[in-house]
Amino acid sequence: MFSWVDGQPADTLAVKNRGLAYGDGVFETIAVKAGRPTLLARHLHRLVEGGARLSIGVDAQLVERELLAAAALLGEGVLKLVITRGDSQRGYAADPLAAPRRLVLANAPAAYPVSHAQQGVRLFDCQTRLAEQPLLAGLKHLNRLEQVLARSEWSSPDYAEGLMRDTSGRLVEGVFSNLFLVRDGHLLTADLSRCGVAGVMRAELLAQAERLGIQVQVRDLWLADLEGADEVFVCNSVYGIWPVYAFVSLNWSAGPLTRKLQSLARAVLDV
Amino acid sequence: MFSWVDGQPADTLAVKNRGLAYGDGVFETIAVKAGRPTLLARHLHRLVEGGARLSIGVDAQLVERELLAAAALLGEGVLKLVITRGDSQRGYAADPLAAPRRLVLANAPAAYPVSHAQQGVRLFDCQTRLAEQPLLAGLKHLNRLEQVLARSEWSSPDYAEGLMRDTSGRLVEGVFSNLFLVRDGHLLTADLSRCGVAGVMRAELLAQAERLGIQVQVRDLWLADLEGADEVFVCNSVYGIWPVYAFVSLNWSAGPLTRKLQSLARAVLDV
Repeated sequence: MFSWVDGQPADTLAVKNRGLAYGDGVFETIAVKAGRPTLLARHLHRLVEGGARLSIGVDAQLVERELLAAAALLGEGVLKLVITRGDSQRGYAADPLAAPRRLVLANAPAAYPVSHAQQGVRLFDCQTRLAEQPLLAGLKHLNRLEQVLARSEWSSPDYAEGLMRDTSGRLVEGVFSNLFLVRDGHLLTADLSRCGVAGVMRAELLAQAERLGIQVQVRDLWLADLEGADEVFVCNSVYGIWPVYAFVSLNWSAGPLTRKLQSLARAVLDV
Repeated sequence: MFSWVDGQPADTLAVKNRGLAYGDGVFETIAVKAGRPTLLARHLHRLVEGGARLSIGVDAQLVERELLAAAALLGEGVLKLVITRGDSQRGYAADPLAAPRRLVLANAPAAYPVSHAQQGVRLFDCQTRLAEQPLLAGLKHLNRLEQVLARSEWSSPDYAEGLMRDTSGRLVEGVFSNLFLVRDGHLLTADLSRCGVAGVMRAELLAQAERLGIQVQVRDLWLADLEGADEVFVCNSVYGIWPVYAFVSLNWSAGPLTRKLQSLARAVLDV
């Protein structure tokens, strides 16, 4: 595969980059099909919003041109785009004149077992909790040690994902997915104002639900909500939707609303 | 100045390094005097402990040799040492065979005004709160967006440091310092089991206080503790101790215990 730094082929980055020093940046993980980035408008929207919240200038037009060019070259696979605040000297204070740096990493398609989408997945019960930090909540920023710790908790292929709670015990998300519950034909997903990553597929599904007239509640979720759910699924912008069939002693079948949204998710990823 | 990656001169690092991808690593900032790293044993101890908590293997003997060699070359200045979990493919799961990577960055001596140590400093009242995450508390890891946001809150040279609280309102630390209060001849400093960085100079001062028979309380600190303090100071392993003379409407003079510990801190940094 290939990588570009500021639009030029490169497989290294300056050691003074603030992405390395402090995780001072944001990223997107974008599925590429038939030479085109999928869900591009939503990825660019989140990137610009994340940059704005961290005061990192994102040139969306330049990024879009680079993503289109990289996707055309890649054909099929996954692009990772990283925007950091750029380089700086020692110390947390940023150089206001430092130019943000763009990194594009092209990867092969994700190789998940077909059964994850068909039969569904079992979720690991992660003990790593998400800290509550409203200033960073929702952002796909580069401070991801909580996800690294959570993902290190299991190695068995019996678990395709892990369920993460916040430090107060609310159910928030998967390690690399967002979580949805179905109850009485309604959708529920976690409010992400304290922690969590507001996924691009989550945003797409919320928009699709509105279009279809499906009622959605975005609110705090607790174990009781999971226990009372008729269907459970996780989603992200690379694999779409995986039904969840088990978590600890709870079990579900992949229900009709999960299957309906799954085919919609597949459609936007197969563009 | 110069930089080494895995012991070799280099000013770039692989774009696949997990330090960049996730902030997956730890670091130390070490003052160098007369060709020697100061407080080296304490820095190495924290590095190994941090690596152990994150399951990143740190070869302390190799790191020590590199730091001694880099310090000899630098003569006087500041060494930043970063240990990351190494390189990996896309995804949070680490490759258990990936070798941790060592980065040494040599910098010129920190250029703080002499008045910071002599007359003391005014602290900015940071609105960025520290999230409570026991799994990462105390560690000097690479997820430092909270410090980046806090440091961006002020640009006036009237403030040499900023005071950070946690999301529950406890006083925790400075953006790049630890906080100590003096009350009735006793020392108080924040308990760091929920958040904060357990500084090497803080550890040195706690050890010195024990040696001198000064009573120390390591506990939760609140605004009332600050209001009732006879003396206030901040510390780190580069500048030693700065007395604090003002925070919002509160004022203090640099008192006898601050001055005594300041001269001890200067002595260990002037080795």
